[in-house]
Amino acid sequence: MNNKFFFILVKPQLGENIGACARSLKNFHFSKLRLVSPKAFWPNEKAKVTSVGAYDIIKNTKVFRNTGDSIKDCDIVVSLSARKRDISKRHISITQFSKKIKTSKNKKIGLLFGPESSGLSNEDLSLSNLILQIPTAKSFKSINLSHSLSIVCYEIFKIYNLRLFDKNIKTFKTSSKSKILSLVSHLKNLLDKKGFFTPDEKKNAMMMNINNLFHRLEPTDKELRILASIISSLSKKDINHN
Amino acid sequence: MNNKFFFILVKPQLGENIGACARSLKNFHFSKLRLVSPKAFWPNEKAKVTSVGAYDIIKNTKVFRNTGDSIKDCDIVVSLSARKRDISKRHISITQFSKKIKTSKNKKIGLLFGPESSGLSNEDLSLSNLILQIPTAKSFKSINLSHSLSIVCYEIFKIYNLRLFDKNIKTFKTSSKSKILSLVSHLKNLLDKKGFFTPDEKKNAMMMNINNLFHRLEPTDKELRILASIISSLSKKDINHN
Repeated sequence: MNNKFFFILVKPQLGENIGACARSLKNFHFSKLRLVSPKAFWPNEKAKVTSVGAYDIIKNTKVFRNTGDSIKDCDIVVSLSARKRDISKRHISITQFSKKIKTSKNKKIGLLFGPESSGLSNEDLSLSNLILQIPTAKSFKSINLSHSLSIVCYEIFKIYNLRLFDKNIKTFKTSSKSKILSLVSHLKNLLDKKGFFTPDEKKNAMMMNINNLFHRLEPTDKELRILASIISSLSKKDINHN
Repeated sequence: MNNKFFFILVKPQLGENIGACARSLKNFHFSKLRLVSPKAFWPNEKAKVTSVGAYDIIKNTKVFRNTGDSIKDCDIVVSLSARKRDISKRHISITQFSKKIKTSKNKKIGLLFGPESSGLSNEDLSLSNLILQIPTAKSFKSINLSHSLSIVCYEIFKIYNLRLFDKNIKTFKTSSKSKILSLVSHLKNLLDKKGFFTPDEKKNAMMMNINNLFHRLEPTDKELRILASIISSLSKKDINHN
């Protein structure tokens, strides 16, 4: 599934950014990285270093002479741009982008990222079907190349995998209400013996506060046992007085 | 609004990453960066360089001796972790995180990011309310520090601003159906004159194909004029034969 996405960096300038992009692709289960006439030397030592565990992606990166060649086998091309461009091309939001991806099954999708300093040229943009602008602060729109690629990878990954992640979240079992109630009741008895609830008319309000605390805590069984033993220990006579 | 979010890097190792984080904060309209006993020298020249236009955030970065001090003024602390941790702490998905942010108005929120090599310690995690795991490929979970911070910034930014971005998308006005229909009709007449529709029984099917093409194109008025003039030019006699 993820092999139908091609991440294409046009004239990237810094090896570090290319490496960081490779790592990010692998984080989100993509593998196809392409470079169009990179300004950074290629192969690039810094790209290798910053790719960390994703050197396989760097090794398989394909280099093209021009943008046209790099998208030849794509069905849909989406260009990333930090600003609205004066070009007769549909601009889409990230929400619309996700919808487009969902409805474009069996299509090969090219994602074009421009050089760090200038972004994509109008010539590059003219080869794309859609222009995607990542939402940012108006005052500071220029996102680092590998950050913007990461966000796109992350968004596509979520489309296919989020349900799984929402399901697989680790939940730890909290104690039953009855166990919490019996601990609170135990605590209440001990406090009663200590003369804690004086004057008597304040008892209900105080118990409400205690209940609030313990029920909001959502403790596990183990934590409840720890609390019980703390309470018991506290209520014992001091060792010194024995 | 965005001043209630504190991005806290615990023992960050590389100045470049701190700088990239600062830039990302500014991209998404955040400003509060905190460091807990950075392993990188501080102030850091590389951080300054990689922050690009976000040096103001670097200058205002606060440094703390330990994690406890760095979260003292926060109401809720969310720790980022690449893996499920064996700690009695609620793990949340990114969807649940967004919900939590939405329902936590007027709360100051601390976001804890661990050192590049090892992630947050269990001691750090014990100070947080929730643990957030960014969804990634199972086989390669370790996200670059500034990438994971970018994704969190981006997600929070979307909560407050996405509607605005979905609205403000540049739409370019496509031609009215009547204009497209009249162009197609003009084309049909010209093609008829050229004997294009032979045998006659194929005409309807062919016209359906042509209609499909032109209506799917969604041209602007200007593009429609260009198309009309292309069609007219093509239908003229060759200059050579005049």
